Amino acid sequence: MGEGEPAPVEYVHELRVRYGECDPQGIVFNANYLLYFDVALTELWREALGPWQEMVERGVDAVVAEANARFRAPARYDDVLQLRARITRLGDSSLTTEIDVVREGEVLVEGRLRHVFVDAETWRKTKMPDWIAEGLRRFAGPDAGKN
Amino acid sequence: MGEGEPAPVEYVHELRVRYGECDPQGIVFNANYLLYFDVALTELWREALGPWQEMVERGVDAVVAEANARFRAPARYDDVLQLRARITRLGDSSLTTEIDVVREGEVLVEGRLRHVFVDAETWRKTKMPDWIAEGLRRFAGPDAGKN
Amino acid sequence: MGEGEPAPVEYVHELRVRYGECDPQGIVFNANYLLYFDVALTELWREALGPWQEMVERGVDAVVAEANARFRAPARYDDVLQLRARITRLGDSSLTTEIDVVREGEVLVEGRLRHVFVDAETWRKTKMPDWIAEGLRRFAGPDAGKN
Amino acid sequence: MGEGEPAPVEYVHELRVRYGECDPQGIVFNANYLLYFDVALTELWREALGPWQEMVERGVDAVVAEANARFRAPARYDDVLQLRARITRLGDSSLTTEIDVVREGEVLVEGRLRHVFVDAETWRKTKMPDWIAEGLRRFAGPDAGKN
Repeated sequence: MGEGEPAPVEYVHELRVRYGECDPQGIVFNANYLLYFDVALTELWREALGPWQEMVERGVDAVVAEANARFRAPARYDDVLQLRARITRLGDSSLTTEIDVVREGEVLVEGRLRHVFVDAETWRKTKMPDWIAEGLRRFAGPDAGKN
Repeated sequence: MGEGEPAPVEYVHELRVRYGECDPQGIVFNANYLLYFDVALTELWREALGPWQEMVERGVDAVVAEANARFRAPARYDDVLQLRARITRLGDSSLTTEIDVVREGEVLVEGRLRHVFVDAETWRKTKMPDWIAEGLRRFAGPDAGKN
Repeated sequence: MGEGEPAPVEYVHELRVRYGECDPQGIVFNANYLLYFDVALTELWREALGPWQEMVERGVDAVVAEANARFRAPARYDDVLQLRARITRLGDSSLTTEIDVVREGEVLVEGRLRHVFVDAETWRKTKMPDWIAEGLRRFAGPDAGKN
Repeated sequence: MGEGEPAPVEYVHELRVRYGECDPQGIVFNANYLLYFDVALTELWREALGPWQEMVERGVDAVVAEANARFRAPARYDDVLQLRARITRLGDSSLTTEIDVVREGEVLVEGRLRHVFVDAETWRKTKMPDWIAEGLRRFAGPDAGKN
């Protein structure tokens, strides 16, 4: 990162936990965090590049190759959660995003998604287009790669 | 219904309630019954006509135009439920299905779905093909129509 | 409605369709509208009375007795939807809510929920407390009852 | 593993992909695999120990501390999937399960869940009861631990 270059920033999206997303333990059912991670990346994408669908119309799509979540404390019905997302890896044909789920300053869940870019027609692996890497850079750290 | 004609039969599909389908009240979240109704119709369809997707490949699809549910008693995590489905109306371009959700003989939820047939390409309303009406008849009552 | 009495108002909640809520037809899966209706009522409730959970803490809960939806046109991934909710019936022990799902002025789905009030401990049917009827009145029409 | 001791076995649970579990790409939405993993562990548990709820009634519960999934190929609507589950770690107060999602011999998704045992009242971390470790052993390899 050169001098004067702005520090990478997180993208923060807020949402409120819905009743139907909670389970009999009264907490958000674990699978629904992956739904939240997807929302966070969609909104980061919109801020950086516009609607996800525009990428698809330009012939490229991205599919989840790996998803990880560490659950430190439960979120509950009606909680307002911050999804704090950042790009940690701009690979040649892959993208790694980390998302913290935060409630009033406490990290409840730590998520990581790895996407792979594919041709929107053939679904074969393809390179990440430069315009995507450039657009995402503002939410990526200096070590994220693909300079 | 002529003499000797067999009485219409229900199609019964069994499933077990999943943890993630239940809410903090400890019961199946109401939206998930529509998911169950869809499963019941899919399985009735498979028995009567084969996989739903075959219809789509033949150029016709069906979309839900109306859904109704009456909740009489709650289902809980791990319950084994019977979905008892029958066709109550074979319309010119629509199809009405009723589904009872039953646990050990007790009707918990009464559902009704009305589908409309559409062209799989244009999504314009279309007539129900005869081969569909014929295939579904065994799960339809004598007053269901489209003789 | 007496002279000078303010006209009943709708409560409007906006949300954006999530990718995971859409099905292979590319549209919101029908069951998810019941999830949306629940969100709409929760937010109307918050505006009128505070968090739903406060009612439960005061010993009363409400369960869905009936749900209906008419699907007129599909909503798609990334659409911003308005959920326009109003109370149409304040019964002795029940509550009827109507919710229109609207995209840019077009009504896509018409929903109706009927809730029944129950004792939060015993789950036996109970009367709607007066403080609830009073709080909800601003979102109810003059014919909604329980004056 | 002593001589003559039977080799550890996998628990296999079969399910069919539901329409509402698939997304506009026509494939199972990634979050729903966590739902599947939960179903697989629930059924393994039932075979080994009885209903999950019996554990809760005996004062112990288990919460997901970590979830991982690697997506190698997509599952589609109406696919019949095998969930092949096995215990890979019986820790002092934690449990690790691996689940392969398999379609006609092809591994589509590799999952891993780590649960932590908690007191069902206080939700404080607690030791895995011996009766649970013993019951689960038949689905665990010789290196899974907790002698």
